[in-house]
Amino acid sequence: MEKKNISDPRISDTRVNQESSVKDGRTDNGSADQQFFTFAGPGEEMTLEVGSCLGPITIAYETWGHLNADKSNAVLVCHALSGDAHAAATQGGQKSRPGWWDFMVGPGKAIDTDRYFVVCSNVLGSCAGTTGPSSLNPATHRPYGSDFPMITITDMVRAQGRLMDHLGIDRLLSVVGGSVGGMQVLEWCARYPDRMVSAIALATTTRHSAQAIAFNEVARQAIMADANWNLGNYYSSDTPDMGLAVARMIGHITYLSDEAMGTKFGRRLQNPATLSLELGNDFQVESYLRHQGRKFVERFDANSFLYITKAADYFDLAREYGSGSLEQAVSRFKARFLVVSFTSDWLYPTYQSRELLKAMKQNRIDASFCEIKAKWGHDAFLLPGTGLDRLVAGFLGGVCHGR
Amino acid sequence: MEKKNISDPRISDTRVNQESSVKDGRTDNGSADQQFFTFAGPGEEMTLEVGSCLGPITIAYETWGHLNADKSNAVLVCHALSGDAHAAATQGGQKSRPGWWDFMVGPGKAIDTDRYFVVCSNVLGSCAGTTGPSSLNPATHRPYGSDFPMITITDMVRAQGRLMDHLGIDRLLSVVGGSVGGMQVLEWCARYPDRMVSAIALATTTRHSAQAIAFNEVARQAIMADANWNLGNYYSSDTPDMGLAVARMIGHITYLSDEAMGTKFGRRLQNPATLSLELGNDFQVESYLRHQGRKFVERFDANSFLYITKAADYFDLAREYGSGSLEQAVSRFKARFLVVSFTSDWLYPTYQSRELLKAMKQNRIDASFCEIKAKWGHDAFLLPGTGLDRLVAGFLGGVCHGR
Repeated sequence: MEKKNISDPRISDTRVNQESSVKDGRTDNGSADQQFFTFAGPGEEMTLEVGSCLGPITIAYETWGHLNADKSNAVLVCHALSGDAHAAATQGGQKSRPGWWDFMVGPGKAIDTDRYFVVCSNVLGSCAGTTGPSSLNPATHRPYGSDFPMITITDMVRAQGRLMDHLGIDRLLSVVGGSVGGMQVLEWCARYPDRMVSAIALATTTRHSAQAIAFNEVARQAIMADANWNLGNYYSSDTPDMGLAVARMIGHITYLSDEAMGTKFGRRLQNPATLSLELGNDFQVESYLRHQGRKFVERFDANSFLYITKAADYFDLAREYGSGSLEQAVSRFKARFLVVSFTSDWLYPTYQSRELLKAMKQNRIDASFCEIKAKWGHDAFLLPGTGLDRLVAGFLGGVCHGR
Repeated sequence: MEKKNISDPRISDTRVNQESSVKDGRTDNGSADQQFFTFAGPGEEMTLEVGSCLGPITIAYETWGHLNADKSNAVLVCHALSGDAHAAATQGGQKSRPGWWDFMVGPGKAIDTDRYFVVCSNVLGSCAGTTGPSSLNPATHRPYGSDFPMITITDMVRAQGRLMDHLGIDRLLSVVGGSVGGMQVLEWCARYPDRMVSAIALATTTRHSAQAIAFNEVARQAIMADANWNLGNYYSSDTPDMGLAVARMIGHITYLSDEAMGTKFGRRLQNPATLSLELGNDFQVESYLRHQGRKFVERFDANSFLYITKAADYFDLAREYGSGSLEQAVSRFKARFLVVSFTSDWLYPTYQSRELLKAMKQNRIDASFCEIKAKWGHDAFLLPGTGLDRLVAGFLGGVCHGR
């Protein structure tokens, strides 16, 4: 039999070894404009939804534009699972590294930093400057690891509320977010109904379907299956990069639609001249996913992935605020609403936005709904060209002028 | 801060340690009726599609019913990714362990073993008796591991063809299979168009979409990320069970529809009395997936998973037989056809079956198509209650009587 030497086709073979940039719970993300707010110091720890206490808590955030005299032009942008505070590149006329929502946030854009004072903060439990599992535990002077208490969407929003207090903002003009950021928007409206004029919930859901939980659980299992995971205590040794990369790859499949993957990659091969039948990455879609996995481990902490996905799975607006009734939960809302879904989003399909809208209409809430035709799947809210920017610009402008 | 002890929530914590039952390439599956056919001995090795040679090759198979005098009543059943030769429990009036297609194959059932001589064989590259990566390499007297050559759907079908020769069956009454088994059906019709009267392709595709490749690739990465994988050479040490379990969990999500998962599990908790916010398995869907992962590693070999999924990804009827044109590829077909898809199958959606049917109609092939309304997703072809059995019984009966 022919002897074959299979080269190692795993993600790791081209992985760049890098030292963790996580120091003292803060990631150096190259933004000169990142600011930090610390609260819940000794004796004033925050009691989390699960009953644990956490403190001190540092929130990394960025702001764009200027708060007007009556503090009525503040817009809070909530990021999704793996995002950070750096929503936009432009800061005071200078361009820094690209922001994750550059087509939406900036001078003259939909969330117009010439008009609005825009705030975006890294969520509690994450790893881009805000306190999370990779932060130092003051009790042990070592990273929390799995000693970090379970956090929920409620806890994230309560921390954001403390940041708004700190910034002197009693009432937001709007709270905006997509995906897990959209869950934060809904939580804001239920928890602090008097603290915003309007809310924009994009590509989101009031609770995960069993399928969405299933995807998150498999991704978590991939991390926990990594020999380096070590029950979450890996900060002084090798990190579970392979598991985290697989987790990210699972996520990426759910962020794109079948059609988008077909358009982007189809069955195209990396090297069309040779049809290799070895266990390497022959199809472009395989190469793309591995690349996404590799990139992700350079910037994200595996434990943060575990904690934030679990928080998203537990989020259930009807259970938390309506004893299981979405109509009852939504009765707390006072904000004027824009709800947007995307036709090809199969992670949070349109039917889930319609359920939310129905509950709002039952409560006579001033809510607009738009299902945008877009083939890119769940990721569509992060991509220009769908008309989302014009929709949001129009809605915010209307809210601003009381139209 | 409250000190929390998180118990290890990984799949492994309840994993049963078991010795591999793979010996000499054969798995003891408890079937008294499993038979073996060995060919391609020294000097007569089979040249595979990739050009490598493989031999000797053992095929594990089972048969039900009796071959009639003119050998015209043989039906070949092709199994899917993780199946085996044990399609049905009933053997000569005796019941053995459950078969994977008991509702379809047996006395008086759709594939009626009182009328037909039914054959099912374990595919090349698998691990339930047929030669695969876990079999002994005669050159080294150790399991092949990653020295096993890449195999394709073509190679699987050619090995089945040799088994039919061995059984003295020139022409099959029908070739039947779902999913990856359906790919084998299509390959049979293209490669050996004169060797069957009819063919039944269920819940299958002529080629994987980018999304289907993506799911397989992530599952493979999960296996290869397991520290025990060791480039496929793990047979004398710990096996990559965690990775294989994650791979199976990914698969299971794609086998079920969103609706089926919602019906089966919804957001129900394992223990409704306590809402644990730890990283354990709280939702029933999580527990189900872990259970599926654990069960799978007890019966399946990780390398076989890698090889067979890759074979499925490479399968492309149009490329192989039509220079990229499905119409041209299908022009080789001579069998009378039944094509069945299921409404909620999002792994191989109905549009893919329609493409196949269109190519058949362009070639004036006698083909019937039925899209069955079923909410269980891709797995529907393995489940009773959809009407699939009556459909197949009617089709086969018609073929039998030349109707």
